[in-house]
Amino acid sequence: MSVYTSVSEAELGNWLKNYSVGQLVDCEPIKEGIENTNYFVATTQGRYVLTLFERLPAAELPFYLDLMAHLARHGIPCPAPIADLADQYLGHLNGKPAALVTRLPGRSVERPGVAHCAELGALLARMHLAGRSYSAYLENPRGSRWWRIAAHEVKRFVKKKDSELLEGEIAYQSEHRFPDLPRGPVHADLFRDNALFEDARISGVIDFYFAGVDCLLHDLAVCANDWCLLKDYRLDEARAGALLRAYHALRPFAPLERDAWPVMLRAAALRFWLSRLHDFHLPRPGMLVHAHDPEHFCRILDSRIALESPWAA
Amino acid sequence: MSVYTSVSEAELGNWLKNYSVGQLVDCEPIKEGIENTNYFVATTQGRYVLTLFERLPAAELPFYLDLMAHLARHGIPCPAPIADLADQYLGHLNGKPAALVTRLPGRSVERPGVAHCAELGALLARMHLAGRSYSAYLENPRGSRWWRIAAHEVKRFVKKKDSELLEGEIAYQSEHRFPDLPRGPVHADLFRDNALFEDARISGVIDFYFAGVDCLLHDLAVCANDWCLLKDYRLDEARAGALLRAYHALRPFAPLERDAWPVMLRAAALRFWLSRLHDFHLPRPGMLVHAHDPEHFCRILDSRIALESPWAA
Repeated sequence: MSVYTSVSEAELGNWLKNYSVGQLVDCEPIKEGIENTNYFVATTQGRYVLTLFERLPAAELPFYLDLMAHLARHGIPCPAPIADLADQYLGHLNGKPAALVTRLPGRSVERPGVAHCAELGALLARMHLAGRSYSAYLENPRGSRWWRIAAHEVKRFVKKKDSELLEGEIAYQSEHRFPDLPRGPVHADLFRDNALFEDARISGVIDFYFAGVDCLLHDLAVCANDWCLLKDYRLDEARAGALLRAYHALRPFAPLERDAWPVMLRAAALRFWLSRLHDFHLPRPGMLVHAHDPEHFCRILDSRIALESPWAA
Repeated sequence: MSVYTSVSEAELGNWLKNYSVGQLVDCEPIKEGIENTNYFVATTQGRYVLTLFERLPAAELPFYLDLMAHLARHGIPCPAPIADLADQYLGHLNGKPAALVTRLPGRSVERPGVAHCAELGALLARMHLAGRSYSAYLENPRGSRWWRIAAHEVKRFVKKKDSELLEGEIAYQSEHRFPDLPRGPVHADLFRDNALFEDARISGVIDFYFAGVDCLLHDLAVCANDWCLLKDYRLDEARAGALLRAYHALRPFAPLERDAWPVMLRAAALRFWLSRLHDFHLPRPGMLVHAHDPEHFCRILDSRIALESPWAA
């Protein structure tokens, strides 16, 4: 369970006096999530999520909170930060930076079908279009600069074959940059467990704490590698096609994006292989959750490298 | 029915392409409301209200929309304006300024009890506290300056007795000003039909288009004269007491506010008597709805003037 910082009902009830959300009715720690401490909070007014930031640099928190506020006021179903009586989204609780955001309804879907992927594609397009007018900037913290650092740090733990694959892929990516792709704020971590569905519609996109500015296509590649996966690690053409077509209908792909797609799929696989290797071999002190198996994304990367015609749309 | 400007599904569907709210599913004109044209709008994303502003000065619209946005992001259950792809709350549709806001659940309560009034008092206090950090300014458009204009305009239509009562009350109010009362953005029109309840909780406060900056106590007086009324136009002490106590628990009244309360109740009665007289005798061209009977607020004013101990808390 990932509660690094405990908050008692008395502490929370007192802290909520800084807000206009009514009185505390209930709070419950959230077990999922490895980066922050989260609680479900119910008040006489509504349902919220309290997040205590354990690791993210304080200077970067406004980027995430303001991005969620921006998207929420454009109608994107993402957590909306609640401003306190001093009109601030970011507060402090038990020594940690803390924020209260709306809790969204719905449940994540473990085995998404074609219709779920089409919903996701449309939502991503709307999110990217709404994000265009967001002016704050934070480089994707898991971008190519970080790959090199992470690869260097995990090198001594991995087999020679894996080390060569990592280095080869980083070299390949550096030779295949697409600096002119459309860019903007991306979620960058929109795995199945970060999307909530209700009545076959996406009712919530959550956990924006890996967001940053990057190629918009990066979001699609991250999603395809998770939502559209076959057991043999190839992409399911039906689901990937639905994802891309639904997106394309709202934000049509530029020709350059079609060219970049195979490279983007590899980059997205590399990024998560690296972070899982890093979490596995170099867990942060106090990290309470067992790291995911890194091998999963090694196989996805292998499969994407072998892919000849990944553009399923 | 108050639809001054018709909007077809094709026009609305096309207009919604400026937003990130998904595709139009349904739209339905709203019969209530006499100031603006309103439609319920359902999209693949959610439920909204479209408002076309028929009468309000365009320069004042940002005050209302930004106030709703401000309160919504503080957790107050009010309509949240949706920003378009150009990041604007205010658009144009069929020649009118137009805005899309979230549609809130719940139903208004025709015969509120003590518990409803306590809910309302708490909500008003939270709204006033959240409004403190709202920096835009618009004087209450139905304040004392407007009373004089309106009284002058309706004078030739009303009986001598009523004319004397109006003039007498305006004189009384001008002799009993409370310039040091706590002020801030007030709803100023929070009648029973502008509050929605769900499961005995207020799920929505709607129709902010009479809002302005005024004494916070004005909101309570407007509410008391509507929510806490007995058949003989006196205040029901039980309901008025619940309203004021619940408010006081969150934003304690200053001693000056207790002194001002009887005057505020009279001012709130005067304000609505005047606007109803004005709507009745001088309806705006094209006004489609029968005006309310002005006599109702004349009797409330009479009753408040006769009141000796109105402070029921």
